[in-house]
Amino acid sequence: MAKIAVLGYGTVGSGVYEVIKRNGAIVNKNAGEEVEIKYVLDLRDFPGDPVEKILVHDYDIILNDEEVSVVVEVMGGVEPAYTFVKNALLRGKSVCTSNKALVAAKGPELIKIARDKNINFFFEASVGGGIPIIRSLNQCLTADDIEEISGILNGTTNYMLTKMADEGWEFEEALKTAQDLGYAERNPEADIDGWDACRKIAILTSLYTGRNTDYEKVYTEGITKISARDIRYAKELGFKIKLIAESQKTDAGLVAMVAPIMLKKSHPLYNVEDVLNAVYVRGNVLGPAMFFGSGAGKLPTASAVVSDVIAAVKNRSNVEVEWSDEDLDLANVGSVKRSFFVRVSGSGDDKLREVRSLFGDVSIVKVPGLEDEFGFITKVMSEDDFDKGYEKLSGAITRIRVDNREEELC
Amino acid sequence: MAKIAVLGYGTVGSGVYEVIKRNGAIVNKNAGEEVEIKYVLDLRDFPGDPVEKILVHDYDIILNDEEVSVVVEVMGGVEPAYTFVKNALLRGKSVCTSNKALVAAKGPELIKIARDKNINFFFEASVGGGIPIIRSLNQCLTADDIEEISGILNGTTNYMLTKMADEGWEFEEALKTAQDLGYAERNPEADIDGWDACRKIAILTSLYTGRNTDYEKVYTEGITKISARDIRYAKELGFKIKLIAESQKTDAGLVAMVAPIMLKKSHPLYNVEDVLNAVYVRGNVLGPAMFFGSGAGKLPTASAVVSDVIAAVKNRSNVEVEWSDEDLDLANVGSVKRSFFVRVSGSGDDKLREVRSLFGDVSIVKVPGLEDEFGFITKVMSEDDFDKGYEKLSGAITRIRVDNREEELC
Repeated sequence: MAKIAVLGYGTVGSGVYEVIKRNGAIVNKNAGEEVEIKYVLDLRDFPGDPVEKILVHDYDIILNDEEVSVVVEVMGGVEPAYTFVKNALLRGKSVCTSNKALVAAKGPELIKIARDKNINFFFEASVGGGIPIIRSLNQCLTADDIEEISGILNGTTNYMLTKMADEGWEFEEALKTAQDLGYAERNPEADIDGWDACRKIAILTSLYTGRNTDYEKVYTEGITKISARDIRYAKELGFKIKLIAESQKTDAGLVAMVAPIMLKKSHPLYNVEDVLNAVYVRGNVLGPAMFFGSGAGKLPTASAVVSDVIAAVKNRSNVEVEWSDEDLDLANVGSVKRSFFVRVSGSGDDKLREVRSLFGDVSIVKVPGLEDEFGFITKVMSEDDFDKGYEKLSGAITRIRVDNREEELC
Repeated sequence: MAKIAVLGYGTVGSGVYEVIKRNGAIVNKNAGEEVEIKYVLDLRDFPGDPVEKILVHDYDIILNDEEVSVVVEVMGGVEPAYTFVKNALLRGKSVCTSNKALVAAKGPELIKIARDKNINFFFEASVGGGIPIIRSLNQCLTADDIEEISGILNGTTNYMLTKMADEGWEFEEALKTAQDLGYAERNPEADIDGWDACRKIAILTSLYTGRNTDYEKVYTEGITKISARDIRYAKELGFKIKLIAESQKTDAGLVAMVAPIMLKKSHPLYNVEDVLNAVYVRGNVLGPAMFFGSGAGKLPTASAVVSDVIAAVKNRSNVEVEWSDEDLDLANVGSVKRSFFVRVSGSGDDKLREVRSLFGDVSIVKVPGLEDEFGFITKVMSEDDFDKGYEKLSGAITRIRVDNREEELC
C-alpha cells in the first residue's frame, strides 16, 4: 500500500481527494498497489468533512512519517510550498504538484534533488490542467527537434476574450462576470496581466529545450488593453483575439512571449473557446500536433495530479526529466516577424498617406459606426521595424499582433 | 550503445532511418545512450542507398545477433511480421511496431510475452501516426474512468470526404485523386471500407478497457455509399460527414463502431480536415480532451516509432500495459441512441405524412436543384427503433447517422 499526504485542501486538494475516492479501483490498478490518503494538511479545520479525521495542521507529522512515500502539493504560491516540497524530497518522498509558481521558480533545483534521491518530482497539472502536455513532452515527443510550442494556457482570459467577442462586452464587464463565476480571482492580475500564462510557457520552454527559462525574462503583455472596439475590428476581419503564450526557435534564437494576438480562422488555436486550454506543438519530423482540454477546474486538474501520484507510486526510481539549471538565452522579441493590426484616429487621404509612408501598402479596415478612426494591417515585418513606424504615427490608438500562419491543423 | 534492427525499408522504415540520422543527437540524449541501426531487413536490394551496407535479407542474422536489443517492425500485415516479432520477443529483444494489423490481431499475446521476458512491446505508431495517444492512455490518463474515445483515425478517407465537401466531387473522383497523391492504396478497401479505422478503434478500446477487443466484432461501415448528393444535404444543414471510429460506455454496455456520421459544427471533430487525425477522449474526471495531428505519413509515423525506440532503450525492464487476452463483450449497436438523416425520393403531402407516421415530428431539409427527393432528420432514437421505421419507408435512398452532441471542445 502506498500512503500519500495532500498539502492544501482548497479546490485542487479537495479534487484530489474526490478523484482518489471516486476512481479508487482504477487508481489502485494503474498504480499497481492501493493508494491511500493518510494525511491532508491545511491550516483550516473542516468539521463534518470526510477529511476531518486525517486532517493535520503540522507539516512535521507528514515529514516525519516514514510511511508517507508521496506528497501532493496543491497549496499554490512559492512559499511555504517550496520549503515543504524541498524537505519532502530531501526525506526521500516523491512530490506531485499543480503549482506553476513553484515549478517556474524552483523547477531545476527540485528536479535535481529528486534525481539525486532517486525519487520523483512530477508537475503534470502545472500547465494545461488535465491536458497531458508535460508527460507528452518528456516521454512521447522524444524523437523530435521541437521547433515551436504555442498555446492558450490561461482559461480565465480565454473565457473573457470569448465573451467579449460573443457578447460585445467591454473588458471590465467580462472580468466581473469571470469573477462572479469563480474563474477569476478577486486579485486577477496573475491572469489578466499574463503572468500565469508566462509561467506556464516558461515551464514548457524549459522542458523542450532542457534549459532553465527565467519566466521574468519572458516578454509578457496581458489583455487589459483589449477593448470592445478592438474586437469589433477583429470580427470585421474574421479574426479572433486570443492571449497566446508562444515559444519558438527563430533565426535570431529562441523567442518566448505572452501577448494578445489576432488569429486568422485557419489558425489551429482559433476555435479554442471559453475556459478551454490548448497547446500546439510543432516538431521537425512530427509536424504539427495539438492537445486540447480543460486547462483548469477542480476535477480536470486533480485528474492530472492523481495521474502523477500513480506514476510516482509505479516508478519508485527516478524518471529522468531534462531541465538543467543552466539559463536559456532568450532572443529579443524585436526580431520576431509578423503583421500588426493598428487602430488610428482620423480619416481622409492625408491620414492614409501618412500611414502608407510609414508602413507601405497596408490593408485598411473600417468598422461601421466608428467613423472617427480606422484600422489597418501591415505587411510582415519585425517588431523592431514596426515599432519604429508606430512611434512616428500620429493619432495611433492601439496595436495588436497578427498571426499570419496558413492552416496547418483544424 | 543500443543496437537496433529495422524490419522493412518501405515508407515508414525509411522514415525511421531518416529520423534517427537527422535527429541523432536528440535521440541519443533522450535514450540515454547512442542508438545505432545495425541492420535493415528487406527482401529488396537498394543499390546506392545509404542502407545498402547494413541491409540483410535473412531475418535469422538479426535474431541471432545478441547485440541487437530492439527490433523495429514496420513491414505491415500479420505475417511474416507476427512470426518475426514473436521470435524477437522470445529472444529477449524489445519490439516497436507501427503495424496496426499485427497489434489488433495479436496484441495481447505479444504484450504477454514481453511482460514475461521483462522487455517491451511498444506500438505508439499503430494508431494516430505521430499523435501520442497510446502512451497518453497508458501513462497519462490513468486517474480516469474513460467513458468515450471517438476519432478520425483514417487520413485517406478524411481527405476524400474533405475534398468531396470542398470540391463537390463524387466518391470515385475523390478516391482516384487520393490514389494519385499516394494517400490511398491501389487496393483501397482497408481504408474506404473502414477496416483500418476499425482496427485502430479496437486497439484503443482494448487499451482503455484493459480487455481484448476483437476488431472483427466491431460494427464497421465505410464511406463507399457516401455520394456528392449526401454531402449537399450535409452542407445545407451546416453539417460535415466524417468517418468516425467510436467506442463508448453506454447503459447497454460498451459499443464500438466505425461509420460515416454527420457532425454538427459544435462537434469537436468537425474541424479536422484533409489527412489529419484526431482523437477525442472523455474521462469521468478529466472531462473532454482531444489530440490532433498527422495521422499518417512517413515522418510523423516514424517520429512515433522512434519515440518508442527511445522508450525501449531507456526502459530496459517491462513497462506494464493493461491488455488482457480476455475478450471484451461488445453491446449491439442497435441500442445506441442518436438522430438519423434520411434521404427519400418523392415529395408532396402524402410522402410527408408517411415519414411523420413512421418517425414522428422530423425536420425536413430540401436541397435546391434536387426536386425529386428530400431529406429529414429524426429525433434521437435507438438504431433498432430507427431501423424498424426505415425498413417500412418507401422510396428511402440512404440514411446517415447524426451526432447530436452539444459543444464540449473546439
